[in-house]
Amino acid sequence: MRLKHIKGAHERIEASNYIIHSPEEKRGHYQCLFDNHNPIYVEIGTGKGTFIIEQAKRHPNINFIGIEKFDSVMVKVVEKLEQEKLSNLLLIRMDATEIEKIFDHEIDLLYLNFSDPWPKKRHAHRRLTSPIFLKRYETIFKQSIEIEMKTDNRQLFEYSIISFNEFGFHMTDISLDLHQDNIVDNIETEYEQKFASKGFPIYKIHVTKEI
Amino acid sequence: MRLKHIKGAHERIEASNYIIHSPEEKRGHYQCLFDNHNPIYVEIGTGKGTFIIEQAKRHPNINFIGIEKFDSVMVKVVEKLEQEKLSNLLLIRMDATEIEKIFDHEIDLLYLNFSDPWPKKRHAHRRLTSPIFLKRYETIFKQSIEIEMKTDNRQLFEYSIISFNEFGFHMTDISLDLHQDNIVDNIETEYEQKFASKGFPIYKIHVTKEI
Repeated sequence: MRLKHIKGAHERIEASNYIIHSPEEKRGHYQCLFDNHNPIYVEIGTGKGTFIIEQAKRHPNINFIGIEKFDSVMVKVVEKLEQEKLSNLLLIRMDATEIEKIFDHEIDLLYLNFSDPWPKKRHAHRRLTSPIFLKRYETIFKQSIEIEMKTDNRQLFEYSIISFNEFGFHMTDISLDLHQDNIVDNIETEYEQKFASKGFPIYKIHVTKEI
Repeated sequence: MRLKHIKGAHERIEASNYIIHSPEEKRGHYQCLFDNHNPIYVEIGTGKGTFIIEQAKRHPNINFIGIEKFDSVMVKVVEKLEQEKLSNLLLIRMDATEIEKIFDHEIDLLYLNFSDPWPKKRHAHRRLTSPIFLKRYETIFKQSIEIEMKTDNRQLFEYSIISFNEFGFHMTDISLDLHQDNIVDNIETEYEQKFASKGFPIYKIHVTKEI
């Protein structure tokens, strides 16, 4: 993703109440941040927040956490949130590669939306569905692992199917062309709007695993 | 598939030496028909034979068996074979739904090429990758189950991925757009030529399972 530097973005994020600061220190206590017992759904790669804000609006009885590494993108989510005033959505500004240092058996579902495909074979371990990551996810979930993944990248999706299968995941749902299916509750990310409008297929899979 | 009735097709098939007659009676003895110890690869849905004839030509050290239920199509394969004179390819004219009555721990690989998608949910059990069929295949293979499937039907492929995964199959290779990959040894079936030329994606998966 090509990013513009936005002046003051870092400071605005730091000052926002929607941002979870020093997330490592909240490990094991995320439920307290929401002050309820509702499930916690986490999105890696929140971008400008279109997906997670709409999810939070539609599902007030679920808590959402959006993770995004770039200040210049995260600041857009902060701005939208300050207008929307949602109480069930918080944000973390970080690179999600060490997500197991942030959460400890406390999330219910993980969204992997349009993750970096890392197309080179020598970077395969960086893909968020590589065996390294699937192993890391084992300690972040409350009961069982539940992942919903969307991507426009065919090679990443092929790799992910094989990886989930190899790692003993149960595949409960799959679509190889999501926008051709009659799915009424699909919420599009910014990437998804862009790619689907060009006629490229959007791939989606839902997997679970008992731990 | 819309089929023309071809006069005399049945008689020509009956008279051909390339046809295995009364295949149930050969159960457990297919290796003897080829008079060698080479592996046996079986294709369900041989059609006009483009795929299996080319495979047999390229791989003289593998024995091939093509199964096709329609006389009017099978007669085309017989005619081609009588010209080609291949010694490592035989044919069975039957509906493959009860394949476990034909083979007994004696095949090495099964090709499912462009099988009937049976799109209606109430017909799902008729799909060749339904749990019913995956169970049947367990007694036809020598050592481990090995299946290579190609289709242009997205819904059938989605169903098959979930079914293979559910049934404990190991996915060794997958392509969600075979003709975009640089695969030099892909042999196209007649269906494949037709659909790929229209720009539709061809899906392929290779799976194995220890028995």
